Amino acid sequence: MAHLLAPWLRGRERSLLRRLVNRVARRDVMSLAGGLPAVELFPAETYGAKLCELLADPCSVQYGPPSGALKEQVALLMQGRGVPCRPEEILITAGAQQALQVAVDALVATGECVALERFVYTGIREALAPHSPRILTLPSSLDDGLDVEALERYLLAGERPRLVYVIPDAHNPLGVSLTREKRERLVVLAEDYDFVILEDDPYGLLCCDGEFEQPLAALDSERVTHVGTFSKILAPALRLGWMRLPPPLVDTFAAVKEAGDLECSRLTMLAVGRLLAELDVERHLELLRSTYRSRRDALLEELADRLPDGCSFSEPAGGMFVWVELPAGTDGERLLERALDEQGVAFVPSAAFVDVHDLDAPANAVRLSFSTLEPESLRRAVAKFAACL
Amino acid sequence: MAHLLAPWLRGRERSLLRRLVNRVARRDVMSLAGGLPAVELFPAETYGAKLCELLADPCSVQYGPPSGALKEQVALLMQGRGVPCRPEEILITAGAQQALQVAVDALVATGECVALERFVYTGIREALAPHSPRILTLPSSLDDGLDVEALERYLLAGERPRLVYVIPDAHNPLGVSLTREKRERLVVLAEDYDFVILEDDPYGLLCCDGEFEQPLAALDSERVTHVGTFSKILAPALRLGWMRLPPPLVDTFAAVKEAGDLECSRLTMLAVGRLLAELDVERHLELLRSTYRSRRDALLEELADRLPDGCSFSEPAGGMFVWVELPAGTDGERLLERALDEQGVAFVPSAAFVDVHDLDAPANAVRLSFSTLEPESLRRAVAKFAACL
Repeated sequence: MAHLLAPWLRGRERSLLRRLVNRVARRDVMSLAGGLPAVELFPAETYGAKLCELLADPCSVQYGPPSGALKEQVALLMQGRGVPCRPEEILITAGAQQALQVAVDALVATGECVALERFVYTGIREALAPHSPRILTLPSSLDDGLDVEALERYLLAGERPRLVYVIPDAHNPLGVSLTREKRERLVVLAEDYDFVILEDDPYGLLCCDGEFEQPLAALDSERVTHVGTFSKILAPALRLGWMRLPPPLVDTFAAVKEAGDLECSRLTMLAVGRLLAELDVERHLELLRSTYRSRRDALLEELADRLPDGCSFSEPAGGMFVWVELPAGTDGERLLERALDEQGVAFVPSAAFVDVHDLDAPANAVRLSFSTLEPESLRRAVAKFAACL
Repeated sequence: MAHLLAPWLRGRERSLLRRLVNRVARRDVMSLAGGLPAVELFPAETYGAKLCELLADPCSVQYGPPSGALKEQVALLMQGRGVPCRPEEILITAGAQQALQVAVDALVATGECVALERFVYTGIREALAPHSPRILTLPSSLDDGLDVEALERYLLAGERPRLVYVIPDAHNPLGVSLTREKRERLVVLAEDYDFVILEDDPYGLLCCDGEFEQPLAALDSERVTHVGTFSKILAPALRLGWMRLPPPLVDTFAAVKEAGDLECSRLTMLAVGRLLAELDVERHLELLRSTYRSRRDALLEELADRLPDGCSFSEPAGGMFVWVELPAGTDGERLLERALDEQGVAFVPSAAFVDVHDLDAPANAVRLSFSTLEPESLRRAVAKFAACL
């Protein structure tokens, strides 16, 4: 049957990130690799009570439309970030990943041009792959992310991407956030050059230092497809995320979502709606932020103390990730092999985040996650990491 | 932003079935329309207990690999239907719909040929739409389903479909099941003409009269992509289904699934695994079967008594649906309008199941569902339906 696979899939390998997942899941490894949120902070008991309440009514496990109460809660979260938002602008999706796939399926025809940063969340590449897009590769700065001027040069040279993918806050994998000026420039360019900004914002509610800038969706509601998720602020196993869309497009995108899985779990949507209505959401977010803040600070302090000359790293204002650039000539993948063998510590080499055809991408960087381990464990893990260098 | 939609989506309307859903959901309507399983039989209390057990461990709501225990339970279900099956042949999906989308994305390139019955589950059309396939439309018999000889004539005439979509048992919407001979012939044709059979089997465990024939997957494990679901035997809101695949393809298809939504809910997978391990599954299935049997019998009896001359209907051995052919010249959609207005009864007109470009499709048929209402309500609903004719 393998010869019957569609052309885009023939000979395609699993992503390096996916192949790493199994290797680093060994019990004896301290992992700075995963993008795993601190699920011990999830209000599991309250959530369990909501599930049991709902299970008393068989309708909770039936097919049914998306929960209006949940959309209202999402609209409140968006408003909290400065985005004018009504429930009818929200499409509930199976996590942010489904939102990315829906956006890409709805907006990108086979072979069209899409702009992505060189190092970027691998899920967007996976969602794009069936469309065999032509990729415009954009550089990023470790200070303030995506190089908007480089995008502008491409546009001036006649490139016309359909879609520009942006992670505005606490970028995965770079940890960086866009300045206000860059956000404003991006929406102007989207208008001038007629493209859609796909704004992937899993970490926007997890700023450790005050508040992130407003999302791009606050600047332009027509050209920005905004994507959010409960995976990072509640728990991944809810498999709930959302898109915020211009109202005339909600129904169109809903049809694309339905072709993928009909609907999200009614039981889960109802339970999360009730959980959020009862929870002091701001307090819960503050608990997450302060937890991540102490973990991030421990990681950054230890990196500053222990990294040898010739290394540099991003200083994220939130989220889960720090990007470390190693001395030229270091190979992240080989370093990982040695780190696993000699020190029992894991991280993700930069090669996991690049296009497989991008042979010019530097290999001397790694992503470290501070979301899962406690500060003391993080310090020990960084010591092990530095010992490999 | 609407002008930026991908070409396949421009001007596309929501399916008639989807548009009907809202209309017939009125409280004062007796509905024979929905494909809603009898969720009052779901062991909700035991399931709630499993959820709460699991929620005591934060790992249950983290990202994580598909549950091995759940795959073992699926393998047991498949073995019970006569399909040799090991857990490593199973890919867990978000319901059967995601399995269909994954199969189609993996197997059908843009514009390729796919064979479908004229009246068929609309979800397969939705999954195919982004690929703009050329559709070979196959007739079906109200006695034994898909016309395999018609497929063979197409093949002899040089047509080379990539994929033939088959619902072997208790077909949606026709209610019919394929004979053993048709199943055997289909797998021979798949081998001779190098196509994949996409076997969609949501109702195979819900035979009301003994047992269905073995699925096509029992006859050929290489060319048959088998799709099953917990939506009809447990509950739709679990959003869990499966594919049974040749082992070398499981990983390839898993990558396509992950591009869509990363993974299914770990909490739900673990809870359903535990539920099935504790449940007397055969007894639970027998409860479903006997419930549907009495509902089906009530519907069929009432149809036999009340339908005027010139009508005929399928006599399903299980599942949820009966197909009623009305006298030539009757228009199912107009009949529904009248039935809603005058009698407060709903059903799905045949037009909902055809390709929008198939202008030759007869409009004088409707699908009636017997899965949701109790026998006495079903009898009243049929009386109302017949009163419109």
